[in-house]
Amino acid sequence: MSAPVPTSNGASHPVEHAPEALDEGIAGYTSVEALLEDNLPQDKLEAEAVEYGGFDVQSYAFTARREQLREPRVVRLGLIQHGIQVSTSKPYAVQREAIFTRVEELVRMAGQAGVNVLCLQEAWPMPFAFCTREREWCEFAEDAVTGPSTALLSSLAVQYRMVIISPILERDSAHADVIWNTAVVIGHNGNVIGKHRKNHIPRIPPFDESHYYMEGDTGHPVFQTVYGRVAVNICYGRHHPLNWLAFGLNGAEVVFNPSATIGALSEPMWGVEARNAAIANSYFVAAINRVGTELYPHAFTTGVQGQGPRQDMGPFYGSSYVAAPDASRTPGLSRDREGLLVVDADLNLCQQARGGLGVRDRWGFQMTARYPLYAQLLGDFIKPGYKPQVVVDPTLDSSASRKAADCEKGR
Amino acid sequence: MSAPVPTSNGASHPVEHAPEALDEGIAGYTSVEALLEDNLPQDKLEAEAVEYGGFDVQSYAFTARREQLREPRVVRLGLIQHGIQVSTSKPYAVQREAIFTRVEELVRMAGQAGVNVLCLQEAWPMPFAFCTREREWCEFAEDAVTGPSTALLSSLAVQYRMVIISPILERDSAHADVIWNTAVVIGHNGNVIGKHRKNHIPRIPPFDESHYYMEGDTGHPVFQTVYGRVAVNICYGRHHPLNWLAFGLNGAEVVFNPSATIGALSEPMWGVEARNAAIANSYFVAAINRVGTELYPHAFTTGVQGQGPRQDMGPFYGSSYVAAPDASRTPGLSRDREGLLVVDADLNLCQQARGGLGVRDRWGFQMTARYPLYAQLLGDFIKPGYKPQVVVDPTLDSSASRKAADCEKGR
Repeated sequence: MSAPVPTSNGASHPVEHAPEALDEGIAGYTSVEALLEDNLPQDKLEAEAVEYGGFDVQSYAFTARREQLREPRVVRLGLIQHGIQVSTSKPYAVQREAIFTRVEELVRMAGQAGVNVLCLQEAWPMPFAFCTREREWCEFAEDAVTGPSTALLSSLAVQYRMVIISPILERDSAHADVIWNTAVVIGHNGNVIGKHRKNHIPRIPPFDESHYYMEGDTGHPVFQTVYGRVAVNICYGRHHPLNWLAFGLNGAEVVFNPSATIGALSEPMWGVEARNAAIANSYFVAAINRVGTELYPHAFTTGVQGQGPRQDMGPFYGSSYVAAPDASRTPGLSRDREGLLVVDADLNLCQQARGGLGVRDRWGFQMTARYPLYAQLLGDFIKPGYKPQVVVDPTLDSSASRKAADCEKGR
Repeated sequence: MSAPVPTSNGASHPVEHAPEALDEGIAGYTSVEALLEDNLPQDKLEAEAVEYGGFDVQSYAFTARREQLREPRVVRLGLIQHGIQVSTSKPYAVQREAIFTRVEELVRMAGQAGVNVLCLQEAWPMPFAFCTREREWCEFAEDAVTGPSTALLSSLAVQYRMVIISPILERDSAHADVIWNTAVVIGHNGNVIGKHRKNHIPRIPPFDESHYYMEGDTGHPVFQTVYGRVAVNICYGRHHPLNWLAFGLNGAEVVFNPSATIGALSEPMWGVEARNAAIANSYFVAAINRVGTELYPHAFTTGVQGQGPRQDMGPFYGSSYVAAPDASRTPGLSRDREGLLVVDADLNLCQQARGGLGVRDRWGFQMTARYPLYAQLLGDFIKPGYKPQVVVDPTLDSSASRKAADCEKGR
């Protein structure tokens, strides 16, 4: 661990921003698709990336406008994506120890890179075995405060003065041993600041997580750390705009989205949802996904009609990235390799986007959001007698009407 | 108008879907950025595009899984983007007549292409002159039912049996002549089914629309037309996830987003927001933006410190496109040319995405959305005494704490 990491010298490349002179047009391009057909400018995509110890390290920086009355608040974020390390057929203790060893390497690399707030992927100390629906995997569940993963990360948090967000499978021994999908927030002094439980649980095979834990009961907490106000939107919660909104209403400046998700289901959404959340809520979003294919000892069915039993869900596609409130984003890490993403973010950009400074930075979405209108609407919607606001074309006299219209059009 | 349009023979190209075999990985690509660095496959981007009468026509089709108990409900959507036609110094009547003439050409092309539901851009019969803050432009406001634009489009709607959504500047003579930013929904029989007023008004120079009209008072209506349930989210409302949500709760299958927006402010968001709304709410979104630079007779300031008075806002960047609930989308029209986008959409895909059929089509976001939780949260949030859910690191004893942490890290 003596080799210098690329971010430790303070050098970092700017993130991919929209061209400065957009309002003058982009010379030579007539459509967005024409842009995509050509190579993107190499200098915008070139990360400060090195391969170190078998994983990739990339670094970027988001800047904010310099304010007159407030100092910049640059926080260095770290995102780690990794795979399981040994066969899922090995004893659980061997599997966990192998992951702990690997993740400790990655966390130490982040510490040496000067990361302030680090987040690991969803259920990082274990294979994402819920697809099997086998109960034995619950052995990986542990206490949020006294469990082995918190012990490991607490010591590293103190050593590197890092805040570490640790998403685990939690067993709540104080409440009848119930299992939760939980993120533990560990402060820079190694103390557990608090925890958040996954709010929205997928009920989609092959994930099948709803067999293991219920919808979280911890609300939408924002954790005031020494480096800023952070929150955690675990995995499937990224599909729910209300979940993102709630963390914003509570004052989050960075929302981490530790995930475990596969291509066929979610990859077309991956580049859209975190970015939209950052824009709509004026905060940074750090989206993390594991990598690799996890092969299980016993075949399981996937709920896809006609698809026979199989031993894996397909590869988790990595691609961890950070999105900013001004609609810019970093490139993602690899689809199939482990990696550490280091991103400097000036948190002043959040407030600027909420109605502050700069051409790009004064959207004022919160001011114009009309929350009372929607509080009323949702309050009405959840009542059994809710009547959707539908205006029916009065000329529609029967279900035959469309057929008649089509007929007249010669269909 | 005798030339056959490309869509009239039923031929259309599939939209850009994620590769079928995503869960097997994409051979040779290790990151999403690596994909972008290469040209996208030509066969995925190749639209059926022709130039006709000085504007582009492109067509695409979204398909849905064939159901056993329900017939496909394929609706042909049309999106028109255009510019103003003559100098803004000309008499208003001349300006409007020139736009009417041009738009009639485009609407007739849509009608001949078999479009069922057509939408025009925001405030289509006029230059988007609110940046000037001059009151004279209010002359373009007209009655939603009896005004000249409704008269023109009603006759075309009957002729082509098309539903036409017409976003205009409305003057409500029944209520003290107040001005609104309004979309009029005209049925296939030429009748006005109803109207919707823009819910969220930008308070960002140089748009300055809040000087002209207030936040809409028409709620979130969904219009049951002969071809399906449609709604209209006008322009700046696309930045507000709650606004999108509300149209979904009321049952919309297609939400049109007629807009007028410029590059420096919104282009980085354009490809994200409509797409996210389609995903999150399980409906189609049709996003429309005007093209061209509108030069005004009298210079105005833009609110950007140090930027002198100018006579334009920069170009509107077009790029109209349609996004689907399964996260796919069409390419966009040109950034700088007028055009007609024709898109076949099987509306069955909406319900499939809400919890129905197929590997990609069973997200169940509505089932897992926990609306009562958020009704409660928003109800609390809008009260003056709202206390954000913040968990403070108990080891933070003073504002000097972060400095000390940074100091120990050798910053």
